[in-house]
Amino acid sequence: MPGYPALPEGIAFGGDYYPEQWPREVQEEDIRLMREAGVTLVSLGIFAWALLEPAEGRYEFGWLDEVLDRLHAAGIAVNLGTPTAAPPPWFSRKYPDSRPVTREGVTVGTASREGACSSHPAFRTATSALVTRLADRYGEHPAVVMWHVHNEYGAPLGECYCAASVTAWREWLRHAYESLDALNDAWGTTFWGQRYGDWDEIDAPRWSHTVVNPAQRLDYARFSNEAHLAHYRLQRDLLRGTGKPVTTNFAGTVNCKSMDLWRWAPELDVIANDHYLDGERPDNHIHLAMSADLSRSLAGGAPWMLMEHSTGAVSWQPRGIAKRPGEMRRNSLAHVARGSDSVMFFQWRASRFGAEKFHSAMVPHAGTDSQIWRDVVSLGADLRELAGVRGSRVAAEVAIVWDWEAYWALELEWRPSGDLTFLERISAFYESLWRAHVTTDFVHPSADISGYRVVVVPSSYLMTEAAGKNLQRFVEAGGTLVVSYFSGIVNEHDTVHPGAYPGVLREVLGLSVEEFHPLRERETVTLSGGGTARVWSERVRLTGARSDQTFRTGPDAGHPAVTVNELGAGSAWYLATAPVGGLGEILGPILDRAAVTRPRGLPETLEYVRRGRHVFLINHADVPAAVPGITGTDVLTGAPFYGEVAAGAVTVVHL
Amino acid sequence: MPGYPALPEGIAFGGDYYPEQWPREVQEEDIRLMREAGVTLVSLGIFAWALLEPAEGRYEFGWLDEVLDRLHAAGIAVNLGTPTAAPPPWFSRKYPDSRPVTREGVTVGTASREGACSSHPAFRTATSALVTRLADRYGEHPAVVMWHVHNEYGAPLGECYCAASVTAWREWLRHAYESLDALNDAWGTTFWGQRYGDWDEIDAPRWSHTVVNPAQRLDYARFSNEAHLAHYRLQRDLLRGTGKPVTTNFAGTVNCKSMDLWRWAPELDVIANDHYLDGERPDNHIHLAMSADLSRSLAGGAPWMLMEHSTGAVSWQPRGIAKRPGEMRRNSLAHVARGSDSVMFFQWRASRFGAEKFHSAMVPHAGTDSQIWRDVVSLGADLRELAGVRGSRVAAEVAIVWDWEAYWALELEWRPSGDLTFLERISAFYESLWRAHVTTDFVHPSADISGYRVVVVPSSYLMTEAAGKNLQRFVEAGGTLVVSYFSGIVNEHDTVHPGAYPGVLREVLGLSVEEFHPLRERETVTLSGGGTARVWSERVRLTGARSDQTFRTGPDAGHPAVTVNELGAGSAWYLATAPVGGLGEILGPILDRAAVTRPRGLPETLEYVRRGRHVFLINHADVPAAVPGITGTDVLTGAPFYGEVAAGAVTVVHL
Amino acid sequence: MPGYPALPEGIAFGGDYYPEQWPREVQEEDIRLMREAGVTLVSLGIFAWALLEPAEGRYEFGWLDEVLDRLHAAGIAVNLGTPTAAPPPWFSRKYPDSRPVTREGVTVGTASREGACSSHPAFRTATSALVTRLADRYGEHPAVVMWHVHNEYGAPLGECYCAASVTAWREWLRHAYESLDALNDAWGTTFWGQRYGDWDEIDAPRWSHTVVNPAQRLDYARFSNEAHLAHYRLQRDLLRGTGKPVTTNFAGTVNCKSMDLWRWAPELDVIANDHYLDGERPDNHIHLAMSADLSRSLAGGAPWMLMEHSTGAVSWQPRGIAKRPGEMRRNSLAHVARGSDSVMFFQWRASRFGAEKFHSAMVPHAGTDSQIWRDVVSLGADLRELAGVRGSRVAAEVAIVWDWEAYWALELEWRPSGDLTFLERISAFYESLWRAHVTTDFVHPSADISGYRVVVVPSSYLMTEAAGKNLQRFVEAGGTLVVSYFSGIVNEHDTVHPGAYPGVLREVLGLSVEEFHPLRERETVTLSGGGTARVWSERVRLTGARSDQTFRTGPDAGHPAVTVNELGAGSAWYLATAPVGGLGEILGPILDRAAVTRPRGLPETLEYVRRGRHVFLINHADVPAAVPGITGTDVLTGAPFYGEVAAGAVTVVHL
Repeated sequence: MPGYPALPEGIAFGGDYYPEQWPREVQEEDIRLMREAGVTLVSLGIFAWALLEPAEGRYEFGWLDEVLDRLHAAGIAVNLGTPTAAPPPWFSRKYPDSRPVTREGVTVGTASREGACSSHPAFRTATSALVTRLADRYGEHPAVVMWHVHNEYGAPLGECYCAASVTAWREWLRHAYESLDALNDAWGTTFWGQRYGDWDEIDAPRWSHTVVNPAQRLDYARFSNEAHLAHYRLQRDLLRGTGKPVTTNFAGTVNCKSMDLWRWAPELDVIANDHYLDGERPDNHIHLAMSADLSRSLAGGAPWMLMEHSTGAVSWQPRGIAKRPGEMRRNSLAHVARGSDSVMFFQWRASRFGAEKFHSAMVPHAGTDSQIWRDVVSLGADLRELAGVRGSRVAAEVAIVWDWEAYWALELEWRPSGDLTFLERISAFYESLWRAHVTTDFVHPSADISGYRVVVVPSSYLMTEAAGKNLQRFVEAGGTLVVSYFSGIVNEHDTVHPGAYPGVLREVLGLSVEEFHPLRERETVTLSGGGTARVWSERVRLTGARSDQTFRTGPDAGHPAVTVNELGAGSAWYLATAPVGGLGEILGPILDRAAVTRPRGLPETLEYVRRGRHVFLINHADVPAAVPGITGTDVLTGAPFYGEVAAGAVTVVHL
Repeated sequence: MPGYPALPEGIAFGGDYYPEQWPREVQEEDIRLMREAGVTLVSLGIFAWALLEPAEGRYEFGWLDEVLDRLHAAGIAVNLGTPTAAPPPWFSRKYPDSRPVTREGVTVGTASREGACSSHPAFRTATSALVTRLADRYGEHPAVVMWHVHNEYGAPLGECYCAASVTAWREWLRHAYESLDALNDAWGTTFWGQRYGDWDEIDAPRWSHTVVNPAQRLDYARFSNEAHLAHYRLQRDLLRGTGKPVTTNFAGTVNCKSMDLWRWAPELDVIANDHYLDGERPDNHIHLAMSADLSRSLAGGAPWMLMEHSTGAVSWQPRGIAKRPGEMRRNSLAHVARGSDSVMFFQWRASRFGAEKFHSAMVPHAGTDSQIWRDVVSLGADLRELAGVRGSRVAAEVAIVWDWEAYWALELEWRPSGDLTFLERISAFYESLWRAHVTTDFVHPSADISGYRVVVVPSSYLMTEAAGKNLQRFVEAGGTLVVSYFSGIVNEHDTVHPGAYPGVLREVLGLSVEEFHPLRERETVTLSGGGTARVWSERVRLTGARSDQTFRTGPDAGHPAVTVNELGAGSAWYLATAPVGGLGEILGPILDRAAVTRPRGLPETLEYVRRGRHVFLINHADVPAAVPGITGTDVLTGAPFYGEVAAGAVTVVHL
Repeated sequence: MPGYPALPEGIAFGGDYYPEQWPREVQEEDIRLMREAGVTLVSLGIFAWALLEPAEGRYEFGWLDEVLDRLHAAGIAVNLGTPTAAPPPWFSRKYPDSRPVTREGVTVGTASREGACSSHPAFRTATSALVTRLADRYGEHPAVVMWHVHNEYGAPLGECYCAASVTAWREWLRHAYESLDALNDAWGTTFWGQRYGDWDEIDAPRWSHTVVNPAQRLDYARFSNEAHLAHYRLQRDLLRGTGKPVTTNFAGTVNCKSMDLWRWAPELDVIANDHYLDGERPDNHIHLAMSADLSRSLAGGAPWMLMEHSTGAVSWQPRGIAKRPGEMRRNSLAHVARGSDSVMFFQWRASRFGAEKFHSAMVPHAGTDSQIWRDVVSLGADLRELAGVRGSRVAAEVAIVWDWEAYWALELEWRPSGDLTFLERISAFYESLWRAHVTTDFVHPSADISGYRVVVVPSSYLMTEAAGKNLQRFVEAGGTLVVSYFSGIVNEHDTVHPGAYPGVLREVLGLSVEEFHPLRERETVTLSGGGTARVWSERVRLTGARSDQTFRTGPDAGHPAVTVNELGAGSAWYLATAPVGGLGEILGPILDRAAVTRPRGLPETLEYVRRGRHVFLINHADVPAAVPGITGTDVLTGAPFYGEVAAGAVTVVHL
């Protein structure tokens, strides 16, 4: 992991640390306990602007100097945050028009966080002034091994509708389109008579009584992403001079709809992800895996950092579900298995005040005589045993297409069915592959995908012509493509591709779709293969593909439901509906035909991931799991692996 | 149908046409395909303001000239729209205070439609300037046979709360009340201390922490209706000089709560309705019939125009449910059966961009090799066979009272039960009559109803004293009146009529209501006739009527539930509750006693309507329907009618 | 009841009276009917500002003079209202910035009530001017026996976010904290970087994209309470000079979340409560009892006034459920049983217009030939028989802790479970005690509780250190304490008490809680005693207490669920979960051990309350109730009590 050479050996271990919330004696206890737990890295300074610059241009760095020195003396490295996610009260007072505005025109209050618009000139100026000083003062501090810019860009503040945003948006549009004719064409402004004659006529796509131009909204999502990214770059460039790596923590790769992380990834020296379990969801460990795999994919396969997760309850969910015995360990090692070179928590010590006081921590309110603390100490020991994993890579033969622009476009208003959401199909395919013990990458549809055996397109409503050709070349060269319904429908401006659906995929799939027949709420149909399906039906007409299964009932009874098109050296499958529970039966033979490597005979609930020379076996069931055919040393115990993983346990076998 | 003499013969066939969205070659293909389908009329220019006047006072009519000439050359007539539902971006920029404001104070954005307030002086001036030019330029164009003002007034923009609206509202109030004393009395401003001492103290009834004066809200609904109507009249008067009929398309007669269409109807040269199926509702064909019957009633029984409906999916519903085989034909001919002299669609060709790109069209994205296109062509042929229907009328012996003011008043806050909604009871009675094969008119409660055998009052919470007397005269003269609970309660200012409920109907019904006993959620009661009922119970005291059924259970057990009062030569029935599924059993004998003509022995799912010398038989079931006792020629096939209508089919018998 | 010496003898009977809504002849009929019903007191003038001062500084008192004289002549006393809950239209027009603003920035409209901000200087000035005149003119009027300030402070307008509020808020904060350091510490502004450097940097806690500082919101709730209280005091002080008692009607003690009534109570000469049944709730008579007991507790055990309740339907509920036969009588006498010296209604006569026209009244729209009127007359007679009850007191051996600050704090965002709401646990314990025929007081946690045998703490998430010590002293002195989960967690600034939960109750309970384990939606667990429980589980660690029941299933299987700690002369019980239906089984033995007096052998549905020498027996069942062991005279009939209360009846036995 080339980005952070100054880091201690092995898997980094620690969390967000807020010494400013505690008196001196607690801070000293912190150091002692960090050493006891084996903490090697803490994130510091996030949200500390009001403490570092209590009035405009007046700086107070002394307290931070002390904390850094104390940590350094204890051998604990620091990931130093820039505190721009929390502009201080004096800033909001002096620049009241820097406060973000919602789509409905509500100016947000200042007693929370994310209280300034990334596009506001005064906010950019104040950011530069502070970050310049941070870089100057701490750039060479031996404790500081990396920079952590801002916090979770895009959450909760994605789009802003203030006046400064509108100004920046018009500039962005001039740059993107150069001419108003190009913009009018791209946005289809002949529809509902929205043709623009002057750049200054263009407003942000504010709330209206009915639907707003979808291409304009799509571009506003792009602009908003770029506005935050520009604020990041401003800081990154100031920090680069220190020679230390710079990152920002993603607000959950899978969950952060507002930011196009494919555009962010190249700007970071190391990918950092925050992941929180959806507490009440029984399969949340599969969604964890998905978030980790997307993080690795954003890192281009290189190791990445788990920057935040939790030891237990998450404070912002409807119920703060605690973790079951062993669950924190399973979660942590699953991230490592899927490429993380760190296990970091929000947070070191539970706050006594503020919005997140009921969020779990490494040191809970109950203190160190607690199961959580014992588990933290034990995890630290485990990670030391896994030091050899650091830097190694995970190889995947299957990739799922993931495109934030498709995400944004699909979830605008007035789509053919309200049941069409981006994550729904992606999760369905991912889960099916997870249960088949297939490790999966995520790819942008225009990326180089030639190295994969199978590429799955579960939900790419928006797809450029170039992306469509990319997928077609992949098939022609021998790849196996699996496409789900309502993909490849519109171009980058939310304009339907010419001709019958799915415009840019008709040729590779060898079919066209004459009419969509979305199913009613709770309606199901049956398939000729015996399964049932829901949400979607459509009239498929074959133009080269053959039908593998037909609809037996519903509006398309007797017509194709699953098809395959042999094209060049490969094949392209199409699913015209959403099988209920039967996706695995359809995918299994496809994976086999494509010769995808996967272990056999494992229970479905055993998570299997290979990273370098290590195989991670994570047993999510309450009974032991037999794992035939793997031999080697159990790294965590040092003993030979005997082919069984205890209930709820994790075994890491070094081959 | 005297209003459009220049129209081609027969039933007009076509749809909204937006050539501005397409390149020249597609426009030429359009003409060819229109001729193939038998299109005779298209609506043009709706939403085209930004194209016709791209900057203030700069006009570009050339493209429209060409389109009109091309259509005329092909023998296709044009219903020319005024584009005022989409004020152009330059207008919103120059007059930012013309943007509508919601009740909660949100100023709406400009990237949608309906972006200007009908009361704003600048909007009225700009409207006049453009419409004057349209009238001058196209008034004598041979293709233009009628004018189509604006689009669906009242949807989505009903009430506006901007400053210009408040000014216009005060003027409207001065005109309506002349003195503040009259206004204070009408609004009951002694309640909650709202007495006004100056006209300028009166604001719009904005959102407040609790309930706003209901009489004020009711008047604001009236004012808002008039504000849009004034904007329509402004245009209508400018267009009248061309000698061609003027209309505006209603946003679904049954669905457009915000506009009092009884006030609009006399201002239109021909009634035009837009109707969209509620896709997921199994009985949506009955609601179609209701919308059509209300359209005919607004036209005073004269033929009207179906200006928009769909070939399939509707884009703005939760799911864009496609039409089943034969459904578009059944829908289209049901409108014709109930008095429409046109079958028009939104839209000719499916857009590739904009908010409604997934709305169906006559030419779908899949093109002409599609079931939809074949059905469109076939429908065109059917309509040519039905040319003789044009201009003929539908006679009804039963009328349902429909009053938008009652609709508005009933659905204000703090009514005796949240289960009281306007459409619920009307739909229940209408459906019951539909299943009994009784064609129904809708009437304003003050209208001349002397020609009907039965008049039904399902939901007229607000009823003027004059209307009550009108109903009483009807009964005395021999009519049969059927009144449902919570009718006749308040006057035109939402003031309870003096004395016991139902003030203005006590005498005609021969009873009074001592206390309302709304039922709890999901609570039901049983009736002495054996049925069950829901939503409502009340303590009826007979003062002349006799009890036909009593409540067997519930808060009014042993007291009357269904009553009849013989008065003069007629009788007045009263239903004090909402029968569950048993309304037909109650209504049947009433219809029989009133000697209402209706066919016997037909399946409930067969729609039966007689228009002039034609009987329309629409089979909504999946099995054939036997239709005894009707002889004549099947107009669509030219063969004699053999007494059976195939599953899903439509037969039109010329007697 | 020392506060109102000028009142007629016995239990005051009457209601809100709005003669201004009616013509002279109806007003005269009112007097006649009031005498028929035995009305002794009416509330007058509420909402009449626009009539009393129709333009700024112009007063019209003549009409009120007449009404007062007419009432006085009839021997009916007057509770004279100040009309400040309805600022007149001229005021809103002249001072537009006096209109309240919501947390989201919506300025409320003026056509309702509560149209001005209590903190606005012009509103305070106008209030003073009018109230001074009212005091001068009517202070010595013989009909006027007491003053009724405003109406239901806090409902619907609790918090206001206008500019005047922000100014007042900053003043309030300076006064409360004196130094910014103290404020920053109290609010924990080091969290999310919110540290203030100047008082003027502090804004109201407006809506934000995510959670706002909870301590700031808690203080804003306190400030808002004080802002309304200051507006009350302003009036109270002006009226005090008249020598007549002053009150304001609480908006339902149990339901008025926004006002801290413990702070209001000492400022009132007599406690006055408005109570409305939750119409559809089957156990609403238990909630009535709870509201009455809280009213008595606010009065420090002294008699209080039921200022409003209803004869039937309540207009603002989803359905205006009428009262069943006898229900109004049961309700009225239950209030008297629990300490009310009045039975007053909203309202005397049903309005014909305005927002509340479907609210029931003593004289309904149907007039006097109605069951409601007959019941009103009959109730008046009952109350005359109960004259001897006046002034007597209710003694309770059990108290429930109720703290509005805990209410506010608990229901802020991001608590450990969304199922944690303040009223839920309080209602559960109260209902259980009601069914056990135990009359209960409510107490502030810092009050003197030494007189009770048992004190219950169902829901006191926020608890000061002093309150915790208060409870501990109570136990040490021999009391029995019963604490439910999630109590004693944070201090007055929403800061978690140091150490393990529950900070200030660890010692008295002899346990600590290591981790919360909130249950999932609909999840249940079983207890070793055989019951089931829901919502909550947690890891209890005993440090002195013993386990009475353990969890049998769930995340804490095998660990304590119910515990008891013997401390000093008393004992402290703890319930770590929410028993489903089994709370009575747990509480019963605790009450017995604490020797709480309660009658035995009564049906659960018989309400039993002793007030002075009178025992009230209210039978809520549809069958007669046997009541063994009570002898005396049935005051309402004058006959000896024979040990049975008829179905639905009320018997008052004088011992």
